[in-house]
Amino acid sequence: MTDLQAIVDDIHATLSTRRGEGRVADYISQLAHVDPKKFGMAVATVDGGMHLAGDAEEPFSIQSISKVFTLTLALGKYGEAIWKRVGREPSGSAFNSIVQLEHEGGIPRNPFINAGAIAITDLVLAGHTPKEAIGEIVRFVRYLADEDDIVVDQAVARSEQATGFRNVALANFMRSFGRLDHPAELVLGVYFHQCALAMSCRQLARAGLFLANSGTNPLIGHRVVSHMRARRINALMLTCGHYDGSGEFAYRVGLPGKSGVGGGILAVAPGKASVAVWSPGLNENGNSLLGSLALEMLAARTGWSVFGA
Amino acid sequence: MTDLQAIVDDIHATLSTRRGEGRVADYISQLAHVDPKKFGMAVATVDGGMHLAGDAEEPFSIQSISKVFTLTLALGKYGEAIWKRVGREPSGSAFNSIVQLEHEGGIPRNPFINAGAIAITDLVLAGHTPKEAIGEIVRFVRYLADEDDIVVDQAVARSEQATGFRNVALANFMRSFGRLDHPAELVLGVYFHQCALAMSCRQLARAGLFLANSGTNPLIGHRVVSHMRARRINALMLTCGHYDGSGEFAYRVGLPGKSGVGGGILAVAPGKASVAVWSPGLNENGNSLLGSLALEMLAARTGWSVFGA
Amino acid sequence: MTDLQAIVDDIHATLSTRRGEGRVADYISQLAHVDPKKFGMAVATVDGGMHLAGDAEEPFSIQSISKVFTLTLALGKYGEAIWKRVGREPSGSAFNSIVQLEHEGGIPRNPFINAGAIAITDLVLAGHTPKEAIGEIVRFVRYLADEDDIVVDQAVARSEQATGFRNVALANFMRSFGRLDHPAELVLGVYFHQCALAMSCRQLARAGLFLANSGTNPLIGHRVVSHMRARRINALMLTCGHYDGSGEFAYRVGLPGKSGVGGGILAVAPGKASVAVWSPGLNENGNSLLGSLALEMLAARTGWSVFGA
Amino acid sequence: MTDLQAIVDDIHATLSTRRGEGRVADYISQLAHVDPKKFGMAVATVDGGMHLAGDAEEPFSIQSISKVFTLTLALGKYGEAIWKRVGREPSGSAFNSIVQLEHEGGIPRNPFINAGAIAITDLVLAGHTPKEAIGEIVRFVRYLADEDDIVVDQAVARSEQATGFRNVALANFMRSFGRLDHPAELVLGVYFHQCALAMSCRQLARAGLFLANSGTNPLIGHRVVSHMRARRINALMLTCGHYDGSGEFAYRVGLPGKSGVGGGILAVAPGKASVAVWSPGLNENGNSLLGSLALEMLAARTGWSVFGA
Repeated sequence: MTDLQAIVDDIHATLSTRRGEGRVADYISQLAHVDPKKFGMAVATVDGGMHLAGDAEEPFSIQSISKVFTLTLALGKYGEAIWKRVGREPSGSAFNSIVQLEHEGGIPRNPFINAGAIAITDLVLAGHTPKEAIGEIVRFVRYLADEDDIVVDQAVARSEQATGFRNVALANFMRSFGRLDHPAELVLGVYFHQCALAMSCRQLARAGLFLANSGTNPLIGHRVVSHMRARRINALMLTCGHYDGSGEFAYRVGLPGKSGVGGGILAVAPGKASVAVWSPGLNENGNSLLGSLALEMLAARTGWSVFGA
Repeated sequence: MTDLQAIVDDIHATLSTRRGEGRVADYISQLAHVDPKKFGMAVATVDGGMHLAGDAEEPFSIQSISKVFTLTLALGKYGEAIWKRVGREPSGSAFNSIVQLEHEGGIPRNPFINAGAIAITDLVLAGHTPKEAIGEIVRFVRYLADEDDIVVDQAVARSEQATGFRNVALANFMRSFGRLDHPAELVLGVYFHQCALAMSCRQLARAGLFLANSGTNPLIGHRVVSHMRARRINALMLTCGHYDGSGEFAYRVGLPGKSGVGGGILAVAPGKASVAVWSPGLNENGNSLLGSLALEMLAARTGWSVFGA
Repeated sequence: MTDLQAIVDDIHATLSTRRGEGRVADYISQLAHVDPKKFGMAVATVDGGMHLAGDAEEPFSIQSISKVFTLTLALGKYGEAIWKRVGREPSGSAFNSIVQLEHEGGIPRNPFINAGAIAITDLVLAGHTPKEAIGEIVRFVRYLADEDDIVVDQAVARSEQATGFRNVALANFMRSFGRLDHPAELVLGVYFHQCALAMSCRQLARAGLFLANSGTNPLIGHRVVSHMRARRINALMLTCGHYDGSGEFAYRVGLPGKSGVGGGILAVAPGKASVAVWSPGLNENGNSLLGSLALEMLAARTGWSVFGA
Repeated sequence: MTDLQAIVDDIHATLSTRRGEGRVADYISQLAHVDPKKFGMAVATVDGGMHLAGDAEEPFSIQSISKVFTLTLALGKYGEAIWKRVGREPSGSAFNSIVQLEHEGGIPRNPFINAGAIAITDLVLAGHTPKEAIGEIVRFVRYLADEDDIVVDQAVARSEQATGFRNVALANFMRSFGRLDHPAELVLGVYFHQCALAMSCRQLARAGLFLANSGTNPLIGHRVVSHMRARRINALMLTCGHYDGSGEFAYRVGLPGKSGVGGGILAVAPGKASVAVWSPGLNENGNSLLGSLALEMLAARTGWSVFGA
């Protein structure tokens, strides 16, 4: 599939002149140390192709992209029962807003805002120590990516734990409504570690491939989730994956996607490919600036938008 | 395509036992007079097929579904400049919420909530009398559906004008921020008439076909909008088409859609078909109860979800 | 009581150098025409004294100060039953906020924000034509001030009617919740006229004297309201009289007061005096800049603060 | 002053039949153990009188009433500079609302809602260990009441620390905006202890006497604060002392007051008296049900309302 490689190369080359644009997240001090000129792309197709460009092999902090994996894990454990704990509507708010929580009795709008992801992590923690839960999440992501060397960046995890006051507030707020089963500090211990997972674009694209292939990892043949569940996770990514920039992403890119404040975005082209991009500079919505543009160009050139050719 | 007809018939038959469920909208008095047992379906495929079931030929009040058509009209006239007047993010709120307007300087979140549609109608009104603008909208919908007998139900329009206090509030609120170019009563005069358009499922499915076919009506060959614009309208329908039930619709049905309080829903399966359903009883989100279920079943059986087979 | 006259003169002289500071309200076009250098003060004591300074005899648009008079009128007609229609808590919001209305089912927080005053006017209108209701309000204010030449400034009333979109929004919003008995345009017709009442500081101070004297006008001996009701109106003025600047006014001045966007403030020193000040330039909270300072100085020098000597 | 004692006795006797009404706070488990039939009153007059009734000598948890004392302490240390950290407007919200904080950059509306009191405690903590700060607060309250046996109820403090998730959320939320100088857990350590101060009605009435006497404790002659500051603290108590029931309290009682969830209320009649009441059952606003009624009756019979005789 040389055409696709050419497209990826061309997009990377075109946007490379703009490397360094956007603002690197600095509220987690470790993230502020990343080289703002990094820019990687990886496209994993359902037929086994892998197309890389730039810094596609370099691990970065996946941050909120991890929410897709813990949601998948929680759905596997508890099925649709998780929706008692978290909604599935776009929030219309920033990733860390607490207003909606107060108005809606401590139930987060969706699993992709911070509060919602913390609620999901609370479910994953059930019956485990935090250390075990972190281990389970790491193993699950390794299984999805079929790679054994994916690890948590402990310096990032510590950095988040030291300054994640807003997340502490969100967790305690939910706890005050009786919406967490475990002490906030335990849930957040796991949450900060899952966010600190370090993965390369290549690994991330492989880990998301099951969502592009009706729930089954086409490389290793494992059924991760059912057809319907894969579709539904994709739907959530499309409506809620970019906080209050979700509508914009759907409008411009037209693919289910989930961004992280580390500058990564995972996007899914159902039936076609799983795509990961990484560039640390963020746009005004807190999503990777070059990454969003790269995905917009890729969707335009491949016709992969879910909204029509 | 006998299979598709069989699917449509079966869905209609299955759900017919539940006709009358849900709550018929009564805040517009004329709508309260509709027979709650009505239930129609129409599936227009891009290759020219038309599959009907039940009351598919009976006109009903399309209400907010009209917002798709006026958005298309305004995009044709002003292009992307319309986004200075209205956003494109899900609101996370009810169709008629005014809170977000106050917080965001009178700019509605998207063109599918009432405030946003009123802002779009204000654009359509430019250079026209209200009567002319209504005429233009009616002609545009007739052109899309390729049917000359689509009309405004004047009794419904009058009924809305008599009791649409919330919409009067929204329009005057935007006007107080300088966000409407015309007097609120003129804009609302047009708005209430566009909402009062009466169309059958068959007509509605035909009128939406250009969105399923990359912007071109496949029956008559007219290019209504460009490829990109068709995709983008679909994206807006998916993220914003059902107010604070948009995430739920994406999760369950997985198709771009726009509902109306009259009990109709227009859904688009890109590359496949345009679908219209009608049943007056509404669910708790204000969307047609049977209509939503019918679309969920249709998407499941056809594999038309945009989020994967 | 020469001392008091000296205090009033001195305050007026001291602040006169700052005449013209602040921003004259311009959202009602007629108000923007007022000379920003105007500055009047009037102190009417319960023992019959009247102390004037500056432009104390010149009528100005009392605007929201009228809300005190219509509240008193409505309490006289309906008693405590009015509290089914309006609350009595500070709103914590701007004078024209609509957010609280949506969250609380269309019931305004208190009778001194615009929405609350419109709800009160709706009550005053009961059984009347708008013209009659306006007549009743004018007669009531004349009775309070014991002056026959108080009139509505028709140019101001027309100006408000032409541009008061926010008030139209508020009224229709309440109407959509079924919280107004009369059509919004009739209620607003009365409301805009009551706001357009033109009174001098002297007239205003006299009209407010019953509130300083336990409900009885000490000049003419008329009992306007009971002891308890006078106290309660004063309480409302103190907690809610200056919108989201009410706490600040209580903190600095320490007297029940009600401001108007025309630059007037009526303040009450229970047992002592009724005070009216006027200077068109407004501070950031929309209250008269010099007027607030004058009252702060007056309260400090007289020891009239209700919160202690 | 036998009359006043007779009034106090009569009010206590009249309301005693209703002891047990209202809902005892249970979110702090220790508070739930209090006998709901307790009912005490203490009126300390500026001329040295003390009038007790019922359980006036029994210590109870003063909870939020402590906010008056820490505000006074912080004003003494930092003067008006504290207003950079906290506003002085009524919030229009519940005691523990977080919504306003998000909208206003982490600055609490006033020092009497929880977030504001936590911000004040953060100031009191400066230069101290938590233990020292608690010691300073206890000493200050002992000095105000001129009693050495006032202590913190350690069981209540522990109980709050174990379950005060909402306060943990508020503190961390402010910290995320950079509005706290110290770690949230240290500030809350002090805050939970100040709330757990146990005082009798008699002690509390004595401790509040300086506010009734222009800043000077009339019993021991100590000037606690200046005239102006005493007035201003009273103003804040009147506009903000009862959360979203502040308007109601001003309307019914007409005295500056501060309630606590333990069922106590401290009220100030400037120039007259300091009043403390205690009854654990709370009304729908979270203020003592019998206590509010007792104060309403007392103000009516004594004519002490600040809003007129």
